[in-house]
Amino acid sequence: MPTFELGPNQYGKAETRLVRVERGPAGDRITDLNVSVALRGDLAASHLTGDNAGVLPTDTQKNTVYAFAREFGIDGIEAFAERLAEHFVASQPSIHEARVSIQQYPWQDVDGAHTFRRDGSEVRTATVHHGHYGTQTVSGVTGLVLLKTTDSEFHGFVQDRYTTLPETRDRILATSVDATWRAVQGRPDPAAARAALVEAFADTYSLALQQTLFAMGSRVLQRCPEVLEVRLSLPNRHHFLVDLAPFGLDNPNEVYFAADRPYGLIEGVVRRDGVAIPEEVAWTF
Amino acid sequence: MPTFELGPNQYGKAETRLVRVERGPAGDRITDLNVSVALRGDLAASHLTGDNAGVLPTDTQKNTVYAFAREFGIDGIEAFAERLAEHFVASQPSIHEARVSIQQYPWQDVDGAHTFRRDGSEVRTATVHHGHYGTQTVSGVTGLVLLKTTDSEFHGFVQDRYTTLPETRDRILATSVDATWRAVQGRPDPAAARAALVEAFADTYSLALQQTLFAMGSRVLQRCPEVLEVRLSLPNRHHFLVDLAPFGLDNPNEVYFAADRPYGLIEGVVRRDGVAIPEEVAWTF
Amino acid sequence: MPTFELGPNQYGKAETRLVRVERGPAGDRITDLNVSVALRGDLAASHLTGDNAGVLPTDTQKNTVYAFAREFGIDGIEAFAERLAEHFVASQPSIHEARVSIQQYPWQDVDGAHTFRRDGSEVRTATVHHGHYGTQTVSGVTGLVLLKTTDSEFHGFVQDRYTTLPETRDRILATSVDATWRAVQGRPDPAAARAALVEAFADTYSLALQQTLFAMGSRVLQRCPEVLEVRLSLPNRHHFLVDLAPFGLDNPNEVYFAADRPYGLIEGVVRRDGVAIPEEVAWTF
Amino acid sequence: MPTFELGPNQYGKAETRLVRVERGPAGDRITDLNVSVALRGDLAASHLTGDNAGVLPTDTQKNTVYAFAREFGIDGIEAFAERLAEHFVASQPSIHEARVSIQQYPWQDVDGAHTFRRDGSEVRTATVHHGHYGTQTVSGVTGLVLLKTTDSEFHGFVQDRYTTLPETRDRILATSVDATWRAVQGRPDPAAARAALVEAFADTYSLALQQTLFAMGSRVLQRCPEVLEVRLSLPNRHHFLVDLAPFGLDNPNEVYFAADRPYGLIEGVVRRDGVAIPEEVAWTF
Repeated sequence: MPTFELGPNQYGKAETRLVRVERGPAGDRITDLNVSVALRGDLAASHLTGDNAGVLPTDTQKNTVYAFAREFGIDGIEAFAERLAEHFVASQPSIHEARVSIQQYPWQDVDGAHTFRRDGSEVRTATVHHGHYGTQTVSGVTGLVLLKTTDSEFHGFVQDRYTTLPETRDRILATSVDATWRAVQGRPDPAAARAALVEAFADTYSLALQQTLFAMGSRVLQRCPEVLEVRLSLPNRHHFLVDLAPFGLDNPNEVYFAADRPYGLIEGVVRRDGVAIPEEVAWTF
Repeated sequence: MPTFELGPNQYGKAETRLVRVERGPAGDRITDLNVSVALRGDLAASHLTGDNAGVLPTDTQKNTVYAFAREFGIDGIEAFAERLAEHFVASQPSIHEARVSIQQYPWQDVDGAHTFRRDGSEVRTATVHHGHYGTQTVSGVTGLVLLKTTDSEFHGFVQDRYTTLPETRDRILATSVDATWRAVQGRPDPAAARAALVEAFADTYSLALQQTLFAMGSRVLQRCPEVLEVRLSLPNRHHFLVDLAPFGLDNPNEVYFAADRPYGLIEGVVRRDGVAIPEEVAWTF
Repeated sequence: MPTFELGPNQYGKAETRLVRVERGPAGDRITDLNVSVALRGDLAASHLTGDNAGVLPTDTQKNTVYAFAREFGIDGIEAFAERLAEHFVASQPSIHEARVSIQQYPWQDVDGAHTFRRDGSEVRTATVHHGHYGTQTVSGVTGLVLLKTTDSEFHGFVQDRYTTLPETRDRILATSVDATWRAVQGRPDPAAARAALVEAFADTYSLALQQTLFAMGSRVLQRCPEVLEVRLSLPNRHHFLVDLAPFGLDNPNEVYFAADRPYGLIEGVVRRDGVAIPEEVAWTF
Repeated sequence: MPTFELGPNQYGKAETRLVRVERGPAGDRITDLNVSVALRGDLAASHLTGDNAGVLPTDTQKNTVYAFAREFGIDGIEAFAERLAEHFVASQPSIHEARVSIQQYPWQDVDGAHTFRRDGSEVRTATVHHGHYGTQTVSGVTGLVLLKTTDSEFHGFVQDRYTTLPETRDRILATSVDATWRAVQGRPDPAAARAALVEAFADTYSLALQQTLFAMGSRVLQRCPEVLEVRLSLPNRHHFLVDLAPFGLDNPNEVYFAADRPYGLIEGVVRRDGVAIPEEVAWTF
């Protein structure tokens, strides 16, 4: 009878929704998080025989997230994720690696006191891996939707049998930025990184979304000296100029159809030159 | 053989995605819309025999949306919806009523020139009915998410066999505002209406979300003299205080679990007293 | 100071997720529901002063849903919704009307015993209104996606300045059926109604989706003698033949692009001729 | 001035929606796909200077997908993805690697002729990487939702300060299977792999979802001799027994609350023992 072996594996509690309120005389602050934990270690027995002696229940992981928010507060999502990841590995002999991913939903103060409005424009992210390789922290932003009405061209591309796209010297360029950045030392300022992304998107005269991507990554590296590497995933949200000629109308780059699918997807890494940086930890599933 | 009759019916093109760019020396402006059209009229033949002589294709409706954006511009979603609705009825003998619903996605200027950031916080809406009853315009906002960290109680409610909810003198109150308002004359300022909603949510000491709802509707009526009626649909997005006692911790209204489902849903209309207002047109499907 | 009045209003617990398991020697059965309750009555005090003496908390409504599933079982979603709606009105002096809406998610038995597979193809629905008008029950199905590869034409339609659509004698017709049906007496068989919808979609040679809609509604009326009225909301999910000529290829109705937006939306009611049927109750918000 | 370098990068057209109809005297067949292409190669110039001489536009990739569906047909999503991936690398000197991912939406024949019903229960997947490492094909299924009403326990787990979960000897076990499998030679039968997943979920008496995961992966390896490795991502969709005691009712494993978030997430790989298998190609972004 053939036998089979257990390969890489992990488990944890995903999407624990935590809202923390800090109450103060000068007004409250709220922190709104979605926390996902994944753990690795000596977990073969649970898979092979259902012996859970090494399994910290995912329910306990959820409890720990809530308890830590009270015990230690939340001084930034990176620090909170690191504290949690280190705790699971340090406290459980069976757990050797932990990944904690956090999404933070921003809120705007409305009245300087107790009322807040959800700012749905974008989400801050942090992912921490902790294990024999130490602690690796990746920060980011996702869902940051940007659009330029001009200063974007696309031409000079490969032509083959299946090419019908005309070259363009002026198009709308729109994307939803999904960016992450890594430092080995220090804590990069996420507001500075985000501002660099927006600024470079705005002031780069674009001959390709790839060129804009490289400019955006480079700008983060310029503004945030601790950052060694930036990853960008940029959908090209096509806006097609509508042909109004059948109705006796011209369309001088004014009226567009915003398409859903398909879309281009441009992804790439921009790194600080000549600086050694350890491979990014990724648990592939 | 039994026969069957056609009751109320309508058809149209839904979710035409239109982006218009106004280009100017002092910077561009963009208008980002999702336009849905529905038409009623002498359409029995199409249903009964497939005779489409009275049917203006939904594809033509889409074309009209794009063409009108170029021919007439977009001076507010209410005016654009009214123009479209009146056109379909005026130009087609077979069409007697039109409903045009528009969602507007806001964008923030980034550089004072050509670059914009999508503001995902809320969506502006307008729905226009045009027919033998004239033109009825309903404006609104949806997806406006608000939260208060205090100044909300809930007690004194009915107790029956199935009641387990404890009374509370201090809770988080959170909702996602879906509001519409109607005027018979004039064009209410949507920014003023929206500001009134936020302000009343913030400064109303709440004994029930129903009380907050009435206060929000009343505030719009106070601030916008043209408005005769406000409709509000307010989900009660529960935030439950986490019991940390098992971990030897107190929880002085600090750490909450934000629940997805189920949720309360509080809905109501607030009207100007003693003012006749025609019934709101609604095509029920 | 102007005063404002409270218009129509309602409140309740939405989306209570309930799974019931009936355990038996010949295998288990599961019922998977999403239950939403809305109540109307003497609720002005809660809105005007925050006096909740007439308010049955939404939390209690949720508890009641779970308790009734145990006390009375679930003998069909219509009966379960009716029982709940009648209970809220009968047991609470302040509550005069109730609406209970249920979505049922189907599961397929896998092993004749304890294991089930979620059938994601469609959802069964029921909505019950109970009040001074008695009890009105509407049954339905939603998310039933159908496609015909041929036997669909569209021509003879209105041509105006904005028309570019060519006539077609052969196209794909695809929709996602959202249907409801009403009886005044008796309990129509939902499986028969659903089968009638599918069958009429399949065997109707279609000159317009409107014609297919009328045929589908009529077929339900033919097959289900208790049904007096059928409502249908049918998006026209466009499938566009791709122009392959630039690549030196023909495309004999073989390769299509399935578009997301915009889409046509065809809606209508089909009624039994010459039969009085009370207006459908609808709480408009 | 610091300089920055371009790291790993890729681009392509995502989510091209393709429906192919094969017309025959014994009835039609439809193939409904969502195709995403990503390419790697000599693309630095586009990033650094906007020189697109090596860039095959994503629009051309989309055209190629449609043209290939006509030219070569679609004999399974794996073969179609392989043909596309090999084409992009073979035909473009600048392109060295290609990844083609396909989702297939299943449809059920309704009338043996021209009408089909979308089966929304699950989606078939294939991902092909083609490059210097040859061609690697990964097949899978996602969205396969399974539930067991019994034969699931969870106890003997780690207890720490943050543990409150009681042990259970009988619970509902529910998940949404996301599975992929790999072979180096041959073409595993996806129906057999899927059946093995369902069967093992059903007949494994479960002491942990991890144990069920290993059993499911092992069963695929048993039934599909070509498969060398199975990856499984299994959310633990919690169903909590509702406490009905406050209402004077027992709850003998009958009435449950189906929770949305948080959820457990159990992931792992099961491999054929002692068989060399190349690392799975993954482009990390």
